[in-house]
Amino acid sequence: MSLLISRRDLDFQLYEWLDVESLTSRDRFGAHSRETFDGLLDLSEQLATEYFAPHNRAGDVSEPTFDGERVTLIPEVGEAIQAFAAADLLAAPLPEDQGGFGLPGTVYSACMMLFGAANAATAGYQMLTLGNARLLLAHASPEQVERFVPPMLAGRFTGTMALSEPHAGSNLADITTRAEPQPDGTYRIFGQKMWISGGDHEMTENIVHLVLAKIPGGPPGTKGISLFIVPKYLVSDDGSLGERNDVVLAGINHKMGFRGTVNTAPSFGSGAFSPGGEKGAVGYLVGEPHRGLAYMFHMMNEARISVGMGATALGYTGYLKSLEYAKDRLQGRGIGEPPESPQVPIISHADVRRMLLAQKAYVEGALALGLYAGRLVDELDSADGEDPDDLQLLLDVLTPIAKSWPSQWCLVANDLAIQVLGGAGYTRDFDLEQHYRDNRLNPIHEGSHGIQALDLLGRKILGTQGRGLMRLLAEMNTTAERAEAAGGEAAELGAQLRASATRLAEVTAAVGTLPDVTPMLANASAYLDAAGHLVIAWLWLEQYLAAVGKEGAFYDGKRQATRYFFRWELPKIQPALDVLASGDDTTLAMQEDWF
Amino acid sequence: MSLLISRRDLDFQLYEWLDVESLTSRDRFGAHSRETFDGLLDLSEQLATEYFAPHNRAGDVSEPTFDGERVTLIPEVGEAIQAFAAADLLAAPLPEDQGGFGLPGTVYSACMMLFGAANAATAGYQMLTLGNARLLLAHASPEQVERFVPPMLAGRFTGTMALSEPHAGSNLADITTRAEPQPDGTYRIFGQKMWISGGDHEMTENIVHLVLAKIPGGPPGTKGISLFIVPKYLVSDDGSLGERNDVVLAGINHKMGFRGTVNTAPSFGSGAFSPGGEKGAVGYLVGEPHRGLAYMFHMMNEARISVGMGATALGYTGYLKSLEYAKDRLQGRGIGEPPESPQVPIISHADVRRMLLAQKAYVEGALALGLYAGRLVDELDSADGEDPDDLQLLLDVLTPIAKSWPSQWCLVANDLAIQVLGGAGYTRDFDLEQHYRDNRLNPIHEGSHGIQALDLLGRKILGTQGRGLMRLLAEMNTTAERAEAAGGEAAELGAQLRASATRLAEVTAAVGTLPDVTPMLANASAYLDAAGHLVIAWLWLEQYLAAVGKEGAFYDGKRQATRYFFRWELPKIQPALDVLASGDDTTLAMQEDWF
Repeated sequence: MSLLISRRDLDFQLYEWLDVESLTSRDRFGAHSRETFDGLLDLSEQLATEYFAPHNRAGDVSEPTFDGERVTLIPEVGEAIQAFAAADLLAAPLPEDQGGFGLPGTVYSACMMLFGAANAATAGYQMLTLGNARLLLAHASPEQVERFVPPMLAGRFTGTMALSEPHAGSNLADITTRAEPQPDGTYRIFGQKMWISGGDHEMTENIVHLVLAKIPGGPPGTKGISLFIVPKYLVSDDGSLGERNDVVLAGINHKMGFRGTVNTAPSFGSGAFSPGGEKGAVGYLVGEPHRGLAYMFHMMNEARISVGMGATALGYTGYLKSLEYAKDRLQGRGIGEPPESPQVPIISHADVRRMLLAQKAYVEGALALGLYAGRLVDELDSADGEDPDDLQLLLDVLTPIAKSWPSQWCLVANDLAIQVLGGAGYTRDFDLEQHYRDNRLNPIHEGSHGIQALDLLGRKILGTQGRGLMRLLAEMNTTAERAEAAGGEAAELGAQLRASATRLAEVTAAVGTLPDVTPMLANASAYLDAAGHLVIAWLWLEQYLAAVGKEGAFYDGKRQATRYFFRWELPKIQPALDVLASGDDTTLAMQEDWF
Repeated sequence: MSLLISRRDLDFQLYEWLDVESLTSRDRFGAHSRETFDGLLDLSEQLATEYFAPHNRAGDVSEPTFDGERVTLIPEVGEAIQAFAAADLLAAPLPEDQGGFGLPGTVYSACMMLFGAANAATAGYQMLTLGNARLLLAHASPEQVERFVPPMLAGRFTGTMALSEPHAGSNLADITTRAEPQPDGTYRIFGQKMWISGGDHEMTENIVHLVLAKIPGGPPGTKGISLFIVPKYLVSDDGSLGERNDVVLAGINHKMGFRGTVNTAPSFGSGAFSPGGEKGAVGYLVGEPHRGLAYMFHMMNEARISVGMGATALGYTGYLKSLEYAKDRLQGRGIGEPPESPQVPIISHADVRRMLLAQKAYVEGALALGLYAGRLVDELDSADGEDPDDLQLLLDVLTPIAKSWPSQWCLVANDLAIQVLGGAGYTRDFDLEQHYRDNRLNPIHEGSHGIQALDLLGRKILGTQGRGLMRLLAEMNTTAERAEAAGGEAAELGAQLRASATRLAEVTAAVGTLPDVTPMLANASAYLDAAGHLVIAWLWLEQYLAAVGKEGAFYDGKRQATRYFFRWELPKIQPALDVLASGDDTTLAMQEDWF
């Protein structure tokens, strides 16, 4: 059995629950069928196993090095990138009219998780490149697309997203990289970026940086930010590579985990090179001036869901590995058994089972959230611009949760996986400690946990006068109704979900209508945590309902994990909601000199 | 300001709260005074800063290596060990009639935390050596003590505790290392140990292993385990080193963190050496046969408290470092501020303040628990065997909590410290990621979290027919009474503590008297978590009361952290207690094939 992601669970979630086969009746996905879905999942599992998993540890131990000029990675990373592109997996999810194969994003996400589970750091290059290509396809000119996108899909170029600067991470309004317009319509870029993944390497012929910069004279803050294509090597009209552009590294960052994804501090226009004999890095404006952040945000929302899926992948494979260990490892006996009796596998011990069941509840719940969000994206993508059901509102409110909840709880899953193994889990003889270190990145990048909390409560809920939340709760109530109609245990779970959802609505309404929402926003993280647990409970009930009337160990496991989540996890939101309802100002009132 | 442990907080907890000065009126500690306490704290801070902190990162990067014969560590570790011993810090806490200086353990713990915060891995050698020496002082013969203890206190020898074996970690009943009695009264030891910290190195002249082994013919299980001294080099009657004993390493373990403490798999009697021309490692029985585990347990209880203190030290220094960063780092603005306004230090952002306040509440609360436990040990040690107040019962019930709660929540503190720094916190440019990796060991070693949970609920509470819990709750009620007498906010906090304590008592009584306690024991971890949070709330109320009537930022901080704990943290125990009260069997009922 593969220890990446359970294919049985993927089948259940994709086909038995989300019915992704029904998507094939839509034009956008018409070229596909259950057979092509399964074929791509098989192919992904095979490539992930052959090209990604084997160097997961090596990419960590032999992390990228920078000699002042060149970044060197172990060769297996480049080979994996090529194998991935050669299998057309970069083009797979794009529409056919964009050179793609029209695969639904839900299925694609499932494929990507197999790579993320096998080697999160190497899979990072694909995610970045695809995000870059998609942004260009959405907002760049046809000439720009023609020049840069096909080589990325073919694995000849990789892409980056160059947003942050040393003094501007969470707050992009303060970036100072500037773009000087040139008579020929191009720009020259000057500035220092930070935390740029994949910012330099020799694995592909070229690197396409998407750079946020300010055109002098524009409005202050985020409204003055524009987006530029800045290739490492200039690309001629015939597609051949030209001069080296003025993009060089000031250095690379050395991280706790995710080491195989080189993280860099690129300098633009530092004078190391002079393309065309002029100063500055050559950049090409994407779309209109001053709209860069809006373009980027579109991609960032997809990236945020991807981060959540990546966190889930690490949590999931860690769960499977600790499960396998717990079945094999003999240690101790049942309570009261004599010392002469044989030792038992540690899965027999209740506390080990608790740690495995909690992991199962977290990782399969997180998977459900990611796939559900992917399903919404597919519906929106195939709706030809129509959105009678306010699906965008629903997707918007779920996005910060889909990023944050798995980042937080699948890290907890990795923590539990280590604990199941005990001392062995703490050694580098097993993958778990690396998964734990790798996964710790996810609550930080693509908008930290606190940023997601402000996004959820400030923008997505208060900013829509509660419409986003109402849309979400309506969905939960529909599920609760179905559960109540099913009767028995399902009805009890449905009633519990409804009660918790109602409580969240009440708390939100009570404090959202206060004259001053400052304390509420100050406690936004607690809100995000509570809303996240509620959403996962809802999606567990969805899975429970998809298993109703079905017999067998797999479905029993789904039912038991649902029970675990409703009995052990969902009640945890009550204290958080009490804090929120009280308008608590404990953290706001804390003064700097009291620390 | 030192970023190890706040001396202001140590002063508050030691003098203003725990009144450790009053200990100096007891014979055992009569040589001491506030001046000597402060002097030792100053000395510890100085040595920790000069000899331990500077190589904290180097000890991680250049971890110990093993070439098949020798273990090599960076020389700074050995220098630190010598500096520590030269300052008589190993002898400091021992009674004067044992060659020590009669320092109260409470003060000594505070000193040790400064070393643990500076360099957890290097401080580990001292902790092990002292634990070894104390065990010998308690249970070995005068001749054994004379031969092995003074060289350890002088820094010439180090000590280990060799308990676990590859197939017997949490469950020592299954060890197979055997001790063959010899005509001269010595034993020959044969067997393979695992997870032995400090198991070999060249930093000191000799290493004293304390080895659990079974004498053939003894009773099965834990009742047949005896304890032996097995030195790396035999020691002659005149104290000079003799032959090499047959202890060699099968290998060393490579860990996620705590890398500077070499972790080994020593083989005893493998035939690599033949001391006296015979097979087997020479071992000397400590005390009586078959009582080894009882001797070891005495030390393990102290070691467990020490592990909790070590976890606290890592949490504490991480808190101070993230606090310093948050005061310096400019990023973003207040909500609604125009983009032209200057950036503010991130401590201004409510969510950052929340993360700092939570850290403060965890690490200062954990410190209070460790010092309180140390105070109990001091009272017992100086009571000349009398214990009219059942202090031993109280210490016993607190020990698993003192080990587990800091291990869990000071790791959360390190997680929050990383999050405060964001991407920077994820890099190896800052100490925090190492603290996080180092601290992850603590919920595993010296009895895992699950083992502590069974110890608390099974042995310390159910095993005493609830007397241990009653003793603890009586202490809490006394504090609540004092709080209620103080009136105002203190009275409210006291009432909240009393209500939570009563609820824990009710839940324990209800399920503890059931005919089958299996579900309760299966949920022991939830019980440990709830009891732990209640204990920390109690100790925060103790600190609050010690600050009553005192003005100034420091005391305001104590008050605010108490509020945080009572508003945000203590209520978290309710869902856990509900699960326990319901006799929930979700994890017990989960079947292996359902995973």
